[in-house]
Amino acid sequence: MLKGNLFTTFYSKDDIELIHESVLRVFNEVGVKFEYEEALELFKKHGARVEGDLVFIPEELLNKALSTIPESFEIVGPESKLEIGIGKGLVVAPTNGCPNLEDWDGNYRQTNADDLENFYKIINTSDVYGISSQVAADIPGFENCPTESALAQMAMMAKYSRKPMYNILGITPHNYKRGNAREGARECVQLIKKYMDNFDDYVCYSGMCVLPPLTVGTDALEHYFAFAEEKQPITITTCSMTNMTAPPSLMGSIVADFANMLAVAVMIQLIEPGLPVILSPFSSVSDMREVRLMTGAPEFLMIMSGHIAMGDFYRIPVRCSGALADGFTYDYQAGVESTLGALAVSLSNACILPHASGDLSNFNLLSFPKFMMDEEMLRYMKRLHDGVAISEKKANVELIKKVGPRGVYLKGRTPKDYREETYLTSPVFNRGTCNEEGRAATPPIQERAYKVYKERIESFELPDMTQAQKDLLNEHLPEKFKIK
Amino acid sequence: MLKGNLFTTFYSKDDIELIHESVLRVFNEVGVKFEYEEALELFKKHGARVEGDLVFIPEELLNKALSTIPESFEIVGPESKLEIGIGKGLVVAPTNGCPNLEDWDGNYRQTNADDLENFYKIINTSDVYGISSQVAADIPGFENCPTESALAQMAMMAKYSRKPMYNILGITPHNYKRGNAREGARECVQLIKKYMDNFDDYVCYSGMCVLPPLTVGTDALEHYFAFAEEKQPITITTCSMTNMTAPPSLMGSIVADFANMLAVAVMIQLIEPGLPVILSPFSSVSDMREVRLMTGAPEFLMIMSGHIAMGDFYRIPVRCSGALADGFTYDYQAGVESTLGALAVSLSNACILPHASGDLSNFNLLSFPKFMMDEEMLRYMKRLHDGVAISEKKANVELIKKVGPRGVYLKGRTPKDYREETYLTSPVFNRGTCNEEGRAATPPIQERAYKVYKERIESFELPDMTQAQKDLLNEHLPEKFKIK
Repeated sequence: MLKGNLFTTFYSKDDIELIHESVLRVFNEVGVKFEYEEALELFKKHGARVEGDLVFIPEELLNKALSTIPESFEIVGPESKLEIGIGKGLVVAPTNGCPNLEDWDGNYRQTNADDLENFYKIINTSDVYGISSQVAADIPGFENCPTESALAQMAMMAKYSRKPMYNILGITPHNYKRGNAREGARECVQLIKKYMDNFDDYVCYSGMCVLPPLTVGTDALEHYFAFAEEKQPITITTCSMTNMTAPPSLMGSIVADFANMLAVAVMIQLIEPGLPVILSPFSSVSDMREVRLMTGAPEFLMIMSGHIAMGDFYRIPVRCSGALADGFTYDYQAGVESTLGALAVSLSNACILPHASGDLSNFNLLSFPKFMMDEEMLRYMKRLHDGVAISEKKANVELIKKVGPRGVYLKGRTPKDYREETYLTSPVFNRGTCNEEGRAATPPIQERAYKVYKERIESFELPDMTQAQKDLLNEHLPEKFKIK
Repeated sequence: MLKGNLFTTFYSKDDIELIHESVLRVFNEVGVKFEYEEALELFKKHGARVEGDLVFIPEELLNKALSTIPESFEIVGPESKLEIGIGKGLVVAPTNGCPNLEDWDGNYRQTNADDLENFYKIINTSDVYGISSQVAADIPGFENCPTESALAQMAMMAKYSRKPMYNILGITPHNYKRGNAREGARECVQLIKKYMDNFDDYVCYSGMCVLPPLTVGTDALEHYFAFAEEKQPITITTCSMTNMTAPPSLMGSIVADFANMLAVAVMIQLIEPGLPVILSPFSSVSDMREVRLMTGAPEFLMIMSGHIAMGDFYRIPVRCSGALADGFTYDYQAGVESTLGALAVSLSNACILPHASGDLSNFNLLSFPKFMMDEEMLRYMKRLHDGVAISEKKANVELIKKVGPRGVYLKGRTPKDYREETYLTSPVFNRGTCNEEGRAATPPIQERAYKVYKERIESFELPDMTQAQKDLLNEHLPEKFKIK
């Protein structure tokens, strides 16, 4: 068990207080732009000052909304359920993918539906992920679906999922033709409810991105309203870049983004008091030489820690960062950056570590080899999250006395303390002896990772389903992926 | 500036108190073995209970010794000086090397004196390292030195050093023939004093390893006495393995090692009250499948954090961990493990991050490519150590108001806040765009690292020296490395 939060390394109590005061100033002096009439009406109805499409949230309304946000909730999957929330333990969710892929042979190409099948198999045979996340949206393989591409993609994830599901759910006129985004998002959530035959619990959660600085776009608001109407947990995402869509300072970035997300959280509590919301920032510094977001940057860890600190302060669950990286492949740099990216959540009371595997090039590349390597790194994170066992017994003083100075501990059976406290690596990481024999017996990391990948793909079996469940998914799935 | 210490994530105040009490129990009930008559006499003289070669340190004596240990000190190098101690900032020291090397061409071979020259050039042209550390001991190239191999290796480091020096100084009958280890160690330190023409300041620091569990060997004690007599700062090193030379639990490992090191720190204060001592643990878990130390393990970070927490509690500076790793090459795994290894010190008030570059395979392999990659990772650590600037001004609220919701921050000159707070990577790390053009323009990380390496080697110039300094070093240097 962790005894504290990494964010206290970067932020004092006074720092957090000052960020809070700055957020209040933004609410009062700047306002947040809501590009959706229904949202503006809602805020007006609850006594907020609204000027044009700018909403100024008074402290009283903020506090009222904060009082109904749950610190944790339970989510139910096809074969397992999960507590998610502040201090409920480290929940790891895999990548949400991207249309570009680094394959096992080192080539770069488009991600397609066949890849998705493999990712879902790996995710749902993993001891690391608590969540089955939708991977990559609107990629080749879903063009000519029987109903709508958005529904087919949802069915595709459901088909392979044993774990509770997260849907990225970006409804567009291309992937959902028979209505607007609000209707499409609702129908997607309803599909999962029907598949689970569960209309009471939280059975999936979804997210949508605000439009920094301090704006919530029409499209996002249609989604937020849809999720709230379906009464499923909502993640409020932001992904700003300093000196472009965020102020140039790290603190300024945190203030502007936090105000932006918090305003949506307030709105959701006005629609549906008590509905779980999760703040989900992925903002980082930009590199002015490239004029792009840098999620591998060390500053990313500090910005993420700031948001987790604020979530802790307001008692709102935070899902953020991930094993993200700036480069193009699974090299040393990817190891460094992914580790730093994963730390903010792993060493804190934040609720979910998303994008935890396979991401490269700042969300622009998905890598099979890195996906498998990240999985092993995430086991390191889980070991760290479990913390150090401290007790009079664990001090081992009696044993120290018995073995004595210059004595040897190694004898007989491996002791319980060792087994309880020592994580032994999977074959993806190498702990061999670096002599000629050891090197000859040790293929490079990508080959070790591929071997584990192959075994897992081969071991996968589809979850048990009723005929009704199969029929429901088959109604939407592309021919190739229909369930027999 | 950091606002806290990473170790509070793993250890509460009560935890630290319980480790302290356990250390006292070990001092009282188990004792520490000192295999050196002079040490035993010294402890007796100061009222410690001594049974055979076991020393039992009473709490009163411990507290007396603790009262004279300085929290920080200044060390002077040929061209720069440095404050070292609790909260004095992150001082990074490079690897202390090893006899086996991974070369730029990917081959494995013995480290030799030519390699040392290159390492010293890289170290002394680096913005990362505050210390010039001796790299690799007793390697080919020092066999037929004019005086003693130990002195030649010392002269070799001094020749290239602009920064304060750290000597690994393992005196053996092979590298120093004209006396015992105590005499050899003294003569080595005296060489640096003469070279610096400075007999008043601290001009180098040295270390020696205890013999866990709870033993200090004869050889180490000869070195400790020598350093104390030369009145130079002393690092007390330990490198135990759980369930082998340490108890099986993490807490037990910390208790036994800390007692072992602390006993030496007490002894040194009895010899020379007020002399700086630094505790320097590198202990980790063993992997029972290999029956070897695993410094790439996640548990390493937690054990190191425990020692830093204890150093903070007793107010003794701690130098520990490093960018260590279990594997054989500069791959993704190396990135993950080196990052975790570097974190405990980088995010705390510990005084020195040693072994910060080039190490692989648990101290058994030195890698040129990894050395250059670690250097860039260490810049990430320095950025983290600098922390987040928090103030009313840094909140950027006025700017947020000026730019407004959905506005654009990017205009005109890059703002001061951005320049102050954003670290821009060196060419070793890749932040390019992952399209065909970007990939074509981006060689693999080892090629980028080699380019930086080559430029640095070529840019190196020897420090200015008087003829007397040259003569002094030339007296000991092998023919090939004599200074013209």
